[in-house]
Amino acid sequence: MQAYRSLATTFSRLGAIEDASGILGWDMQTLMPDGASDMRGEQLATLNVLAHEILTSPQTAEALAEAEEEVAGLGEWERANLREMRRAYIHASAVPADLVEASSKASTRSEMAWREARRQGNFAMLAPHLAETLRLQRRIGEVKGAVLGLSPYDALLDGYDPGMRQARIDPLFALLRATLPDLLGRAQARQAAQPKAVPLPGRFPVENQKDLGLTLMRAAGFDFDRGRLDVSLHPFCGGATDDVRITTRYDEADATRALMGVMHETGHALYEQGRPAAWRHQPVSQARGMSLHESQSLLIEMQACRSREFVAFLAPRLREAFGGEGPAWEADNVYRLYTRVEPGFIRVDADEVTYPAHILLRYELETAMIAGDLAVADLPGAFNDGVRRLLGLTVTDDRDGCLQDIHWPGGSFGYFPTYTLGAMGAAQLFAAACEALPGIRPALAQGDFSALRGWLRDNIHAKGSVLQTDELFVAATGKPLGAEDFLAHLERRYAADAAVS
Amino acid sequence: MQAYRSLATTFSRLGAIEDASGILGWDMQTLMPDGASDMRGEQLATLNVLAHEILTSPQTAEALAEAEEEVAGLGEWERANLREMRRAYIHASAVPADLVEASSKASTRSEMAWREARRQGNFAMLAPHLAETLRLQRRIGEVKGAVLGLSPYDALLDGYDPGMRQARIDPLFALLRATLPDLLGRAQARQAAQPKAVPLPGRFPVENQKDLGLTLMRAAGFDFDRGRLDVSLHPFCGGATDDVRITTRYDEADATRALMGVMHETGHALYEQGRPAAWRHQPVSQARGMSLHESQSLLIEMQACRSREFVAFLAPRLREAFGGEGPAWEADNVYRLYTRVEPGFIRVDADEVTYPAHILLRYELETAMIAGDLAVADLPGAFNDGVRRLLGLTVTDDRDGCLQDIHWPGGSFGYFPTYTLGAMGAAQLFAAACEALPGIRPALAQGDFSALRGWLRDNIHAKGSVLQTDELFVAATGKPLGAEDFLAHLERRYAADAAVS
Repeated sequence: MQAYRSLATTFSRLGAIEDASGILGWDMQTLMPDGASDMRGEQLATLNVLAHEILTSPQTAEALAEAEEEVAGLGEWERANLREMRRAYIHASAVPADLVEASSKASTRSEMAWREARRQGNFAMLAPHLAETLRLQRRIGEVKGAVLGLSPYDALLDGYDPGMRQARIDPLFALLRATLPDLLGRAQARQAAQPKAVPLPGRFPVENQKDLGLTLMRAAGFDFDRGRLDVSLHPFCGGATDDVRITTRYDEADATRALMGVMHETGHALYEQGRPAAWRHQPVSQARGMSLHESQSLLIEMQACRSREFVAFLAPRLREAFGGEGPAWEADNVYRLYTRVEPGFIRVDADEVTYPAHILLRYELETAMIAGDLAVADLPGAFNDGVRRLLGLTVTDDRDGCLQDIHWPGGSFGYFPTYTLGAMGAAQLFAAACEALPGIRPALAQGDFSALRGWLRDNIHAKGSVLQTDELFVAATGKPLGAEDFLAHLERRYAADAAVS
Repeated sequence: MQAYRSLATTFSRLGAIEDASGILGWDMQTLMPDGASDMRGEQLATLNVLAHEILTSPQTAEALAEAEEEVAGLGEWERANLREMRRAYIHASAVPADLVEASSKASTRSEMAWREARRQGNFAMLAPHLAETLRLQRRIGEVKGAVLGLSPYDALLDGYDPGMRQARIDPLFALLRATLPDLLGRAQARQAAQPKAVPLPGRFPVENQKDLGLTLMRAAGFDFDRGRLDVSLHPFCGGATDDVRITTRYDEADATRALMGVMHETGHALYEQGRPAAWRHQPVSQARGMSLHESQSLLIEMQACRSREFVAFLAPRLREAFGGEGPAWEADNVYRLYTRVEPGFIRVDADEVTYPAHILLRYELETAMIAGDLAVADLPGAFNDGVRRLLGLTVTDDRDGCLQDIHWPGGSFGYFPTYTLGAMGAAQLFAAACEALPGIRPALAQGDFSALRGWLRDNIHAKGSVLQTDELFVAATGKPLGAEDFLAHLERRYAADAAVS
């Protein structure tokens, strides 16, 4: 037990460092003045290197080996904690310290370059920085892959979604690629036969949007004693233990978009705020990978908040918040706005039916970039080709194309598929929750999330990482993660003859 | 040179950790939700311990000893850098790691308790936390003092103001204690004989106060590409290298107070932004102690911004910012408002003439607390006795007494005297600057700080810590730090027959 206890102390310290980086990262994207970016990069790189040194020290390695000898004396959570410590150790020790530091600095730099490149719609400004970031991420994938016995891409993917593999994703994505074009066609045909969704008329002051967002966050159970809502260019959920910070961006011409963005990040935040407090800063308390994390945001946004039931609760509150008048504010129209299907350029604005196409494209491109089959210089062309092929649209400005996302400039390769795996998980978990507790949907019509939140807390949030992803899905839904419930949900909401969901 | 170079790398890393703590500390006082305080305490304590471990490691000790052998090969700045590295090492290695961690956590806890105690005016809520913080600070003073050959109080003082000693302060403060009551009496008599200062009438929206503050910050030369202005309960200048963050608090009933608060913190910020960029993160680039730091804030606020010249520039801008009408907005009245003398309870609101009394009191009490002659339980009584004796006022609410300042709850003992030492330094430096560049005062009447800022940059800011404090004063003013220029300034501005300054 002594070795295990010393590991717990070490990982508690690592958790505090990670929390510090979380707040610094949040600040960088919300408030930091531009001239501070070099120094902030150094701060984050230094914390990263320190954590890396602690995690990969000979003392940690020895304590791990010793604790694994004593595993019989440990309880279920401690054993899972030890397993996750080993996982963290393998991922970290595979990468030499200078590579960690170089990639952290390069990512910070290319992220800052991306901000300017995006503002100007000038990919050439980003290209050299992105090329360097990609080069270092490929190198990380190679060295990790060598240790884990995985391809470079799988090794990177495993860092975001433990246990997930390209070979597991490919058939799921192939099913979507085969099914969705027909489903989209029928959804568009049905939509054309119905009354047209009318945009809410007026201008919508940021303050009112923010107030309504805060009200809905409270209804969903966001704990403001341990979190905040702020503004950033690219919305995210970040921060630290007991200090979960979500962001959004407001458009005064549109009352609906930021609101659902806020509820999306609130789904992430509920997961973070619901993680097992007794295991704070220990690896077993961590969220179980990014696919599951995204399942929580999409469950709140797509499954719960865009349901007919919740929109019936929301519509009068929207009207009240903005002093709206006329038929556009009726629940039926608001529901049509929130379930409108239309292929578009921007991933984060995409509807549920076309969103997977954005991910299929990015997955295709990033697997090719990591495999060395696609150079950064060729990215805009390949991106635009894919948009034409998968969405039927022609990109004329890279701001609508490969400059729209922060992920690659920020060094995240292997992250994109988790969005669509998350959409699948959201549908599967919501279906199971509603089957277990039939009162969930009627309660949403009253703006009451408590039954849903209780089910999620018990079955997902409070589990941390004690179970591995598919064990968690089996325990919660009776089966491993699949695409069926997601496709059934899309069929019901968008393509079925009568819109019931 | 190899040992020196390895030290430079180590201290660069330490600088990045300190910067990270600076941003986390800023966030704690501006934005952090209350429920995050325990975890934030852990984050700061962890970074503190990490920095402490690096600074006091055997490798650092060996490299220091080795580099000191090779000192002949170093230039002036490198030698000064090495001297400051040794200073930092001595201060840190004197204190065992568990004491560092315990005191950091205790300070965070008592700082949070102070917030609530102050809100409720309930000293008992703070007392046990403050007692623990004091106990640990006394212990730190003792162990440092043993190594440095200093009393515990001098050892703590040396941490804020290198080289400053109680024996040096005592005669300076005795001179103030002997001189100021008479000066105050004459200032009040002169004030009574002049037209009464009329408060600016109206309500003053935070947004307008903020905008005017930003305008004046820009005029003074604050670099917004490397800094911000925000709001906190207790104004401060913090943040990190290339990211200097000042705060203020606004009162919509008063247009004048926050504005000078902003200029005060801007004085601190100009020092931070003007430190030698080529030596970033090295000890020699640091500001030279808190007395000198305070001299910079008070020079901008008290010497420059409350001068007749600058008030002539400011008054019409105040009127314009708030749409003011009537005689209260005339420069003469605004000058009378900004140089009004009146004994009061709150240190941060005190005028120049009575401010030293607040410091004499706190200096008296904290030297007694550290010497073990005053217990925390007896603090409110002793504080209130002192307020009666030194300011002639009766405290009836601890919010107006010993609960008003964050310093002691935050673990800062030995900091208070630096405010009044700073006031002395400000007067001495401003007098020297105006003598060297007679255009400084006329330029201030045009809102032009460039000559003053240039002199400060050359003579103070860009020097970092290459000179020790009194060397710096001799180089810049021809004499070591003294009280004469400060007393002459007060005499001229407040007590002389014709108000010329």
